[in-house]
Amino acid sequence: MATNIPADHPRARSLQTRERMKAAVEEGLVHMTGLIAHGRGEAFDYLLGEKTGPVATAATRKAAAVLLAAERPVLSLNGNVVALAAPELVTLAKAIPATLEVNLFHHTPERVRKLIQVVQDAGADRVLGDAPDMRIPGLASDRGPCHSDGIGGADVILVPLEDGDRCEALKKMGKTVITIDLNPLSRTAKTADVTICDELTRTVEHITTAVLETKAESGHLDRLRTAGVAAALLDWDNQANLRAARDEMIAVLREG
Amino acid sequence: MATNIPADHPRARSLQTRERMKAAVEEGLVHMTGLIAHGRGEAFDYLLGEKTGPVATAATRKAAAVLLAAERPVLSLNGNVVALAAPELVTLAKAIPATLEVNLFHHTPERVRKLIQVVQDAGADRVLGDAPDMRIPGLASDRGPCHSDGIGGADVILVPLEDGDRCEALKKMGKTVITIDLNPLSRTAKTADVTICDELTRTVEHITTAVLETKAESGHLDRLRTAGVAAALLDWDNQANLRAARDEMIAVLREG
Repeated sequence: MATNIPADHPRARSLQTRERMKAAVEEGLVHMTGLIAHGRGEAFDYLLGEKTGPVATAATRKAAAVLLAAERPVLSLNGNVVALAAPELVTLAKAIPATLEVNLFHHTPERVRKLIQVVQDAGADRVLGDAPDMRIPGLASDRGPCHSDGIGGADVILVPLEDGDRCEALKKMGKTVITIDLNPLSRTAKTADVTICDELTRTVEHITTAVLETKAESGHLDRLRTAGVAAALLDWDNQANLRAARDEMIAVLREG
Repeated sequence: MATNIPADHPRARSLQTRERMKAAVEEGLVHMTGLIAHGRGEAFDYLLGEKTGPVATAATRKAAAVLLAAERPVLSLNGNVVALAAPELVTLAKAIPATLEVNLFHHTPERVRKLIQVVQDAGADRVLGDAPDMRIPGLASDRGPCHSDGIGGADVILVPLEDGDRCEALKKMGKTVITIDLNPLSRTAKTADVTICDELTRTVEHITTAVLETKAESGHLDRLRTAGVAAALLDWDNQANLRAARDEMIAVLREG
């Protein structure tokens, strides 16, 4: 279909991102209903004024500390995540370092292979997802299969733009879950240990910055690793974090 | 791509609507980026608790009165609108009665013809859109063309799920504009004379009910038509209406 976005359109940038997501669907990277999920995120980002506020910044720093305290950290990738932020996620995985695994709701072996290729083209040495050897218990959908040396064996998982079912299933497995979810009311947001209510691409870059800063501080990384994941979460109240994120949106709605 | 939505998934209904929208894209009725716009709406509907509240009900009644007071009312249809609520809109058009016109942001003659066919299959006798003879002034995009015996000549237009540019251009032409827009912060919501912040399918059915009730009241319709559109709007403060809609969303966010 022909498309013609006027350059002077007030939402031209957002419309151009939409065109990129459309291209990702045409290339078979993103499921068509992933576009609807993207739209949901756009709406909540709108309520954050499309910028990173102090609440997301605090959650981002906590996420960096937890990922660095982990023994087997994994970054879980779906189609939207790869389409929006593949290079940023490869950079983060190398900075931690963490394992990358493609894991999809709308699973087909072909789509998994294509997504792995995109992440490798973005600079990743190794991306799991095409040879799952175990299942996440309690999932009725196609998203159960995973790698025992990836998501299955992880102690800490970053699952951006995640479905509520899987987030709950990962928690039941005893994992520590960090999510990036613009909707502070979603099951995923409420279930995770650390929820960053912010736009994906912005957030991943901010986590990387926090990871590199922490590693640069003398002794900080050793102290985190010695104390462990539970200690890194001791001072974190994720429900208070979500309340604060909702308050930021309330302020935008009140302004009008 | 294979899809497998578990029946026990808590958001199964919403996911099934997504599948319908996906099918409408595959049939060439909905532009792919229309799925993203649909997702934006989903998010705001989420903030309304996915139900019609008292604020939307009041706006719906006002919309019915204004449409009945009009001399040349037109219902403007785009791809998403037809995919989500074609039969409901045909019923509304007959109840008023009003003219139907297909008018698209992502315009192609083929898509216009397909959409007209869907609306005719839903029971409409006449649907404009495939032979535009004038342009809406001041629009840079493909959505300028319209019919002089439809949108061009209308005194009142219902434009559901509308782009801000076109809503402003229609206001500049001196039209009275009613919109259905779940985002109370959008330019369209702020620019229209009457904004109904509610989900499309629910809203169109509610307008039809209000239209039929008004016509059934003895003398009410005659009084509306004699007094005219400006009189029907005399007691309406759309900015207060939008503030009240935002307050409903604030209550949901506060609840958590």
